[in-house]
Amino acid sequence: MPVYQRMAVIGAGLIGSSVARAARATQAAGEIVVYDSSAEVRARVLEIGVADRAEDTLAKAVEGADLVVLATPVGVIGTVAGRLAADLAPGATLTDVGSCKEVVADAFAALGRPDIHAIPGHPVAGTEKSGPDAGFAELFHNRWVILCPNPSTDPAGLERLTAFWTRLGAKVESMDATHHDLVLAVTSHLPHLIAYNIVGTAADMETVTEAEVMKFSAGGFRDFTRIAASDPTMWRDVFLNNKGAVLEILARFIEDLHMLSRAIRWGEGDKLHELFSRTREIRRGVIAAGQETAEPNFGRDRKA
Amino acid sequence: MPVYQRMAVIGAGLIGSSVARAARATQAAGEIVVYDSSAEVRARVLEIGVADRAEDTLAKAVEGADLVVLATPVGVIGTVAGRLAADLAPGATLTDVGSCKEVVADAFAALGRPDIHAIPGHPVAGTEKSGPDAGFAELFHNRWVILCPNPSTDPAGLERLTAFWTRLGAKVESMDATHHDLVLAVTSHLPHLIAYNIVGTAADMETVTEAEVMKFSAGGFRDFTRIAASDPTMWRDVFLNNKGAVLEILARFIEDLHMLSRAIRWGEGDKLHELFSRTREIRRGVIAAGQETAEPNFGRDRKA
Repeated sequence: MPVYQRMAVIGAGLIGSSVARAARATQAAGEIVVYDSSAEVRARVLEIGVADRAEDTLAKAVEGADLVVLATPVGVIGTVAGRLAADLAPGATLTDVGSCKEVVADAFAALGRPDIHAIPGHPVAGTEKSGPDAGFAELFHNRWVILCPNPSTDPAGLERLTAFWTRLGAKVESMDATHHDLVLAVTSHLPHLIAYNIVGTAADMETVTEAEVMKFSAGGFRDFTRIAASDPTMWRDVFLNNKGAVLEILARFIEDLHMLSRAIRWGEGDKLHELFSRTREIRRGVIAAGQETAEPNFGRDRKA
Repeated sequence: MPVYQRMAVIGAGLIGSSVARAARATQAAGEIVVYDSSAEVRARVLEIGVADRAEDTLAKAVEGADLVVLATPVGVIGTVAGRLAADLAPGATLTDVGSCKEVVADAFAALGRPDIHAIPGHPVAGTEKSGPDAGFAELFHNRWVILCPNPSTDPAGLERLTAFWTRLGAKVESMDATHHDLVLAVTSHLPHLIAYNIVGTAADMETVTEAEVMKFSAGGFRDFTRIAASDPTMWRDVFLNNKGAVLEILARFIEDLHMLSRAIRWGEGDKLHELFSRTREIRRGVIAAGQETAEPNFGRDRKA
């Protein structure tokens, strides 16, 4: 029994195409319709069998759908939601997969469609790859999906969307959109900003060549390049749409960094050792929470 | 034909025990002797068959060895080298595996043993795990080892040490100790500092719980926790012994971060997009250099 009879996915990138694949693999949705603004992507989506139909207008894509998933960069979710609002079937569920939730919650509240279930959502999953070919059905396995209902959200609508994501293999938690943006600023947005920044700093050195940076990257740098290879448009939008929380966390991060810098300058080995010991605990917690492999070096170097 | 007849490894942690394992697996050394200050580690080394002998004094360990590899935290390399200097066999090769090379070069120059081949070295390889059990023979496969000879180094001695590391599966490059410290400050020391710092910042948030940080870490944070789980003593020593280069690179990193912060505050999307696009190239270079897997997400999520 599918959870939804007809799902429309708007935007067929890494996440959109993964939702389509996962919904098909688990039969969470009956018919799967995809809209993408790129004709090339629409053709590719049909070629790789991700969807039953690929439509070239939003109206045709969402017609009769009881689930509409907005999987565009977060900067255009509001506009796209506005454009398709009038075409949504009565009682349909509208959700998204964007990394910022307050802007989406605001946009959904302004749609003028109190008869639909508009629930912002965010699967905390992804890879550094982009495009329809990068998606895969297992992307959400054992990952958390955060839904951000508001006081007027219909519990039955929330329950159905929860059942959908659960079917896709995810674990679902609900929280306030503002709190979501703060949590993700720490666990996702700041790490990406830092990774982009360090890779940029390294590339700009005059005394160390790019070839040297690449050759000797196994000392730690290469882990950062993975995150810094993520989709530029998606991440530009994330920072512009979660400005407040990101700048707050960033300010704390820089403060802490100044303290570390001072400890190095003054040779305060005990302070360094204490921090470096404390951070190990967090790693253990991440592994215990099932969000990371315990394999050393991500299992990257082991032959076996 | 072994490259060295008898190798003494001083310190049997991740790197020391990997050198011993790799030398045994490739027959790069005839007899393998290990010294470790911990009786427990010495016993374990024999138990897991990493060495032929485990000695409880430096003098006994290096006696008659034609290769001595110092694999202690970098902060004590000078002292340990000083303690065993008088016991080194004439013509022996003395090297190390520490992450900072200028301090080691200075220490080696002060040993008063012009009859030996004292060549600082650094295999750019490792995992976040510590201790003798964490080592494995393949750790150096396709990784770079940097050797730092000086103008008075005997070419034949350098060639033999190069042959040793090549036998272990590594690629060898020689450079000046000062340049090494600058390159590694970028590709290894700064990434570790940043990772330790961000994990610390996240743990100190009052508005976001540690449980939330761990649960939702798949958004990027978890990659940082891997590096931040590295050995605290080793890394304290690295920062105290490469202070100049680390503080210089760190200052640049913070400057760049302030610029990024400003771009976010003022909504300068183009600037963000430009940086985020440029950093992708570096990732491609790291993969092309054979230092990283091209698997999305380190192959972590794929069922395959």
